[in-house]
Amino acid sequence: MSRHAFDDAIALTAQSDGTWLGHTSPAYANMVGPFGGIMAAQMLQAVLQHPQRLGDPVALTVNFAAALADGSFTVQARPARTNRSTQHWMIEVLQQGQTVLTATAFTALRRDTWGADEHTMPAVPRPLDAPLPERAGRVEWINRYEMRFVEGDFPAAWDGRDHGISRTRLWVRDNPPRPLDFASLTALSDVFFPRIWRRRASPVPIGTVSMTVYFHADVARLRDVGAGYLLGQAQAQAFHRGYFDQTAQLWSEAGALLVTTHQIVYYKE
Amino acid sequence: MSRHAFDDAIALTAQSDGTWLGHTSPAYANMVGPFGGIMAAQMLQAVLQHPQRLGDPVALTVNFAAALADGSFTVQARPARTNRSTQHWMIEVLQQGQTVLTATAFTALRRDTWGADEHTMPAVPRPLDAPLPERAGRVEWINRYEMRFVEGDFPAAWDGRDHGISRTRLWVRDNPPRPLDFASLTALSDVFFPRIWRRRASPVPIGTVSMTVYFHADVARLRDVGAGYLLGQAQAQAFHRGYFDQTAQLWSEAGALLVTTHQIVYYKE
Repeated sequence: MSRHAFDDAIALTAQSDGTWLGHTSPAYANMVGPFGGIMAAQMLQAVLQHPQRLGDPVALTVNFAAALADGSFTVQARPARTNRSTQHWMIEVLQQGQTVLTATAFTALRRDTWGADEHTMPAVPRPLDAPLPERAGRVEWINRYEMRFVEGDFPAAWDGRDHGISRTRLWVRDNPPRPLDFASLTALSDVFFPRIWRRRASPVPIGTVSMTVYFHADVARLRDVGAGYLLGQAQAQAFHRGYFDQTAQLWSEAGALLVTTHQIVYYKE
Repeated sequence: MSRHAFDDAIALTAQSDGTWLGHTSPAYANMVGPFGGIMAAQMLQAVLQHPQRLGDPVALTVNFAAALADGSFTVQARPARTNRSTQHWMIEVLQQGQTVLTATAFTALRRDTWGADEHTMPAVPRPLDAPLPERAGRVEWINRYEMRFVEGDFPAAWDGRDHGISRTRLWVRDNPPRPLDFASLTALSDVFFPRIWRRRASPVPIGTVSMTVYFHADVARLRDVGAGYLLGQAQAQAFHRGYFDQTAQLWSEAGALLVTTHQIVYYKE
């Protein structure tokens, strides 16, 4: 059996100087360069594979500093601070000696405590009652995800009207299905198409500048999900002078809140 | 006229090696170490004062890696990538050669575009119709802010019940009033008491681990606010095995969304 395209895409090779060598993957190509989610996953992967890593991911912020060229790149991951049960990471991706991505990550050993999901899953049709899109994605990475929209699909017409709301809800999983882990959950956090395309029904040029993922899922919750569907919800809060934000959630089909995530995105008009 | 305590607290002195020297400030003391918002403001300040800085802040992520000791500290701010109209920063705060905070920031020259605030300000009483707390803050930094709660004040009784919702809404500004700027807006983004204290009415030990601020305010919007009140709203989305998140917004009294901000917070039970 061949390896899943996701595992190929996030593969890193250890270098003798402690850095990692990665490469862009045609299977996750975006309009220009790779799908941001796959780069975010790969930066987390550099932490997950690191021999000094303590605990599991709780927070990750990735900054997209420049367009990545197709080909290889170097990932530097450094534990900036290690405490008894927590660890802070600084990460940088370089091509031709130039920084193209920066990131920080936080890992921790979790303890059992009281807990609750305050942002509960909205009532939506079940995954198999939501239609599969008939079209193939305009960019290759879209085809690596099974997306079943229940609200706020791509606009039926790019009419440039202000639709007043940017919210999207969809069932989503890897295509073909793959058991969920921290890396794939990171990539899934970036699966939403740009909110301004929804709000304005206008496919203006955009680019994510910074993205933060908070992991409420631990290993047990990931195991419970397996290769199942996640419900994703995303909405913008503000669009102002070239930048809009997006706030998003990912729940398991059973209703466990796995991730809350945010990003700020450049847009051009 | 003496300088505002906030300006004293965020003051940085340039060092010959390109780093900055800062010091903790008793006026913004927290239970242990300084108020996180003042440290976040100071890290942004190192970017704002940097001779190579391009544009105004759009995004900031601060990671609280260790307890800061009272006294001086060193701030290193480095432009990791400078593009035509945008810039990515990596920032680190050290004490005794050890990393205590890490951060990334993104600055940009903004262009005029279509814009909208999708998350509109909730209907609440006006600032002067909301009561001033009668008590002084249990920690010193609380006294540096005028806080007028309109919903979700500190629990009247620490009864340990699950109140089912963690939302707080309050009018807030510096005390004494001070014209809003990017640094003070950053500190104000961390002004909310821990959501678990509200949800559970239990003052368990907590600590912010990572905080992200997206600035929708530009210089013109800051000028419009002046020393006026901001409406702040904060709510948790999930509490799970030692960490909860918080999503928050700050609007001007006129209803402009100035900041959307998020944090993930450690809690102990």
